Amino acid sequence: MSSDLPDSPRTRITRLNDRQVFDRDALNSLLDSAVLAHVGFVRDGEPIVLPVGFGRDGDSLLIHGSTGSPFFRDMSDGRPLAITVTHLDGLVYARSGFDSSMNYRSAMIRGCASIVDNADKVDALHIITEHLMPGRASEVRPHKSKELAATLVLRVPLTEVSVKINNKMPDEEVNDGDPRTIWAGVLPLRTVAGEPATSELTPSSTPVAASVRALAQKLS
Amino acid sequence: MSSDLPDSPRTRITRLNDRQVFDRDALNSLLDSAVLAHVGFVRDGEPIVLPVGFGRDGDSLLIHGSTGSPFFRDMSDGRPLAITVTHLDGLVYARSGFDSSMNYRSAMIRGCASIVDNADKVDALHIITEHLMPGRASEVRPHKSKELAATLVLRVPLTEVSVKINNKMPDEEVNDGDPRTIWAGVLPLRTVAGEPATSELTPSSTPVAASVRALAQKLS
Repeated sequence: MSSDLPDSPRTRITRLNDRQVFDRDALNSLLDSAVLAHVGFVRDGEPIVLPVGFGRDGDSLLIHGSTGSPFFRDMSDGRPLAITVTHLDGLVYARSGFDSSMNYRSAMIRGCASIVDNADKVDALHIITEHLMPGRASEVRPHKSKELAATLVLRVPLTEVSVKINNKMPDEEVNDGDPRTIWAGVLPLRTVAGEPATSELTPSSTPVAASVRALAQKLS
Repeated sequence: MSSDLPDSPRTRITRLNDRQVFDRDALNSLLDSAVLAHVGFVRDGEPIVLPVGFGRDGDSLLIHGSTGSPFFRDMSDGRPLAITVTHLDGLVYARSGFDSSMNYRSAMIRGCASIVDNADKVDALHIITEHLMPGRASEVRPHKSKELAATLVLRVPLTEVSVKINNKMPDEEVNDGDPRTIWAGVLPLRTVAGEPATSELTPSSTPVAASVRALAQKLS
């Protein structure tokens, strides 16, 4: 079921705001096809921005890290976070440098994290694993309790979200650069997988995991 | 000429610090092969994280935006920034969820921006264009003065930088999950270009730009 994302002064985009999208399905699709988020927070008055893997649990985002990470402890104490996920979909070549740009889909989520409690941690980690490596959760051995104890899982609601999408040809005008000599258009970009490489302790007789083959196929 | 990146309590990585790298060539290589950075700053006490294109001018980073962007005006007033550039190079499949991870190269640059003055703006924009679209600067029409006036270019020194690189097989131990049934290894990921798509005003007789063909070839 789809719904509109909330609109507020804190989420409204002021610059190139024709690119803002309020469709929750667009947000979910953008998040579900991404692996990395960049999480920003304030430490001693200054910004920190870290790349993290994440998962989506309905209308919230899940991230995880080590209980031994000072940055993760910062993020877990309820301070405001900005979590940005960006897909670079293409380079947009205009006949001028000024009109050249990029095609992208980006979401910035603002909010505070709550710590996922122990009773829900296994389920939350399952969601993160399945997000990053679809199909993998049922292939690996179960978590050990010391591993769970060493892992902090944070939940951030997908409430204050700005989604910005640019997916078009360059802005162009007749008589602004010569189209007979200066080509304009888009070079699309995407992420692909290479050949899976097998670890040292895995015998050559062990088949590449079904989850890995499926993702490699999807990203071929 | 290579040199070591400075080491300080502000740049030293505390978590998984065997992944920290102090080689400036590694930083430059990581930056020069990336298109997007995520810039974090503090606004009204809260973090904001935005994706931006960038360029590298020796030992500084250049970013550009519209003089009409409130966020860019924030970034230009000398407040501290954190600029993070991340390559996701692969998914690391261990036999446990806990030891599963990612291969990546990431740099976080901390510092304050200075505004590039008008005398240097054309050169700075040239560097950014050539970074994002190598070979393109000589193909497009020259900047118009009103375009230059509408563009803010910021310079951030590459002084306080933390570089973290993970490029390996999963951690694994004998007797931790059965390697005869659970495959472990790495699925490499990379960015590739698709077929260039030509804009509406470009005649079909105009050849795809040399810069675009070269980048498509490089990312094939």
